Amino acid sequence: MGVPRIARAEVIPLLVGDPPLLNAIGVHQPWTPRLIVELETDEGAVGFGETYGDSNYLAAARALAEQVAGAPLYSLNTLMRRADRAGDGRADGGDTGGLRGALTGDKLRRSVVSAFEVASLDALGRITGLPVHALLGGKVRDRVEYSAYLFYRWAQHPEQSGPSLVDDWGAALDADGVVAQARRFADVHGFRSFKLKGGVFAPEEEMAAINALAEEFPGAPLRLDPNGGWSIDTSVRVARELDGVLEYLEDPTLGVAGMAEVHRRTGMPLATNMCVTSFEEVPAAFAARAAQIVLADHHYWGGLQATRELAAVARTFGFALSMHSTTHLGISLAAMTHGAAVVPELAYACDTHRPWQSEDVVVRPPQFIEGALQVSDAPGLGVDIDRDALAALHERWLELGVRERDDVAAMRVADPEWRQPVLPRF
Amino acid sequence: MGVPRIARAEVIPLLVGDPPLLNAIGVHQPWTPRLIVELETDEGAVGFGETYGDSNYLAAARALAEQVAGAPLYSLNTLMRRADRAGDGRADGGDTGGLRGALTGDKLRRSVVSAFEVASLDALGRITGLPVHALLGGKVRDRVEYSAYLFYRWAQHPEQSGPSLVDDWGAALDADGVVAQARRFADVHGFRSFKLKGGVFAPEEEMAAINALAEEFPGAPLRLDPNGGWSIDTSVRVARELDGVLEYLEDPTLGVAGMAEVHRRTGMPLATNMCVTSFEEVPAAFAARAAQIVLADHHYWGGLQATRELAAVARTFGFALSMHSTTHLGISLAAMTHGAAVVPELAYACDTHRPWQSEDVVVRPPQFIEGALQVSDAPGLGVDIDRDALAALHERWLELGVRERDDVAAMRVADPEWRQPVLPRF
Repeated sequence: MGVPRIARAEVIPLLVGDPPLLNAIGVHQPWTPRLIVELETDEGAVGFGETYGDSNYLAAARALAEQVAGAPLYSLNTLMRRADRAGDGRADGGDTGGLRGALTGDKLRRSVVSAFEVASLDALGRITGLPVHALLGGKVRDRVEYSAYLFYRWAQHPEQSGPSLVDDWGAALDADGVVAQARRFADVHGFRSFKLKGGVFAPEEEMAAINALAEEFPGAPLRLDPNGGWSIDTSVRVARELDGVLEYLEDPTLGVAGMAEVHRRTGMPLATNMCVTSFEEVPAAFAARAAQIVLADHHYWGGLQATRELAAVARTFGFALSMHSTTHLGISLAAMTHGAAVVPELAYACDTHRPWQSEDVVVRPPQFIEGALQVSDAPGLGVDIDRDALAALHERWLELGVRERDDVAAMRVADPEWRQPVLPRF
Repeated sequence: MGVPRIARAEVIPLLVGDPPLLNAIGVHQPWTPRLIVELETDEGAVGFGETYGDSNYLAAARALAEQVAGAPLYSLNTLMRRADRAGDGRADGGDTGGLRGALTGDKLRRSVVSAFEVASLDALGRITGLPVHALLGGKVRDRVEYSAYLFYRWAQHPEQSGPSLVDDWGAALDADGVVAQARRFADVHGFRSFKLKGGVFAPEEEMAAINALAEEFPGAPLRLDPNGGWSIDTSVRVARELDGVLEYLEDPTLGVAGMAEVHRRTGMPLATNMCVTSFEEVPAAFAARAAQIVLADHHYWGGLQATRELAAVARTFGFALSMHSTTHLGISLAAMTHGAAVVPELAYACDTHRPWQSEDVVVRPPQFIEGALQVSDAPGLGVDIDRDALAALHERWLELGVRERDDVAAMRVADPEWRQPVLPRF
């Protein structure tokens, strides 16, 4: 075999239907943009990756696609350099609606690189017959546990939002609704740990929901994530009241100093995907003991190799690791599963939004069994692309014209007075 | 292709001829033990790795060889776990003569794992047609620079040492000898940077040698490594006198606190392969600013993937990286070159002892051109094994019975009064 080279790199933006899930700053739109990266080698092998789809990611991805043409398929270590070169100020950060923390140009490029890295590994796996995990040193577990990602939500998007998908989950706006949602997740997918996206209602209500979950699922690991929506004092109060109930508390308050103070005053393990989302942010957070658990996310951190590197940093400096997710499809789910399979430190159940999506671009989306996914030993990612579905979701992107995910704007459709909340809200 | 599995794992100890190179604790023996690991898959693909050969490494390697039989060839991430399981107290550290710092069981197992990892990657590369660097995300440079490793040395081993190889380098016991040695290295291999192993003579003599090198090779990067042989005050004095002459000073004194003080008082960049040789030792050294450059070494740190992980830790915490070496053959040199090729941070010329060895187990040992090695794009490591040479060096191991490298004992042959020096010597 000669050196396999990238002959074609395509960036396919699409819109995926998303339910009206509530969070600290607003609500998910009916349609979330995602990007699919398709690479084809000079010998016709194909691989797929997936990442954020907002227009700044799209611009950076298109620029990188030009840079990788002709490059060796295995040249993953040069992707960041190529992305930097492609940048030229064309895609210098911006804001994704506030839930990702500060979005620097470097973080944006890492997210774009991750899709190219995953697509390269997928194609390389298909060429060599090896699963992606084997190209990362091999799985250390056969199954990867996921947690149920619970959301306060409406039954459906407001009519003024325009067309949207409808599901049969109904509303969940109080403890009973959250427990019913969790019960359905447990029954359908077998999830055994639960994360509630908080920061939506007053902390008392969200604590009541957590306590109701603890009663319904005795001993199950529980997490609460208000996305930095609370003051330090509120965070301390919640941490004390839920001591022994929560597995960990995720981003109760914003910033390294605040997180450090909450941990110091309560001893509650704190997780973050807001105050530490890049390698550059690790040392200060470590020095301040601002987080005990860092959320890996191969999109954030620059790919699956970078996830391994984050694990090494975590191991060295005594952080634990869990895994973050945002709205995504089956390509990213497969990549997340291969990534989690090769990192011994990923001992917490991983987050995933995937069960909220009723659409996908993969044939036979993987099924959760007892809350876990089997790690695929098939070549590459182990998922096949549904070309018709991919075309349809891209067609929707062309037709509907939604180009950004903006949870604040989506909330404003229902509540014209709504502005991005100044945090802390509570 | 099905999952390639390890059908046969062989550990081949051998003795390689070594010149009488002097260091802080003694002199190299005529014969240095090394281990070659040979893996063969169920389909007959073969790969080779190399590591330390002392009896505690040999015992750990033999135990690990039993553990990997039947394992997937790509299962690199489980090697440490298998080695831990194989340990059972049979190979719990010990001492290699004092130049490696404290040798814990964990460090020993990492060194053994590195040879199995490299052998696995070599075989996997041969199966897939990919060079080892491609299995590590691809090279970021086409050539890897090495430095000339200068030693004070005798012309030949003392007669009482028994049989030994003889070379035509002659003695180097003063500044003139060191410069002549450097000149020959520069002429033959094109090396452009120079490292002097110090700690042998009084610091004044070694400073004179460095100054003579600076005069002979204006502007060439120079390093001095007394292996922790100096007191803090001596280190400070040398650092001040060689300010602007040395690229960096390596392990002038022992321990995190001493290194930190030398750096604080002088600003001299300090490198180490003594006070930080494992991930566990990084945080304390980082907090104290005890070293500015950590020496990578895939044998020490647990393999080529671990070298990438070390680079990520270094990048995150602001260390620079260079590369350490000890007496080794062409398999390790090839592995070092692939490792250096994939790590952008390895911006210093790498150390290598290889030019001191007149023997090898590879056919056509790679040639340094302008002080650098071309990164091989051939499948696997890109070296072919000379089976006859391998058999001959193993035969020597069986015949001569040398089982440990012991520089102190070697010096005692020449000087019966010699005991391991209490450091600092100066």
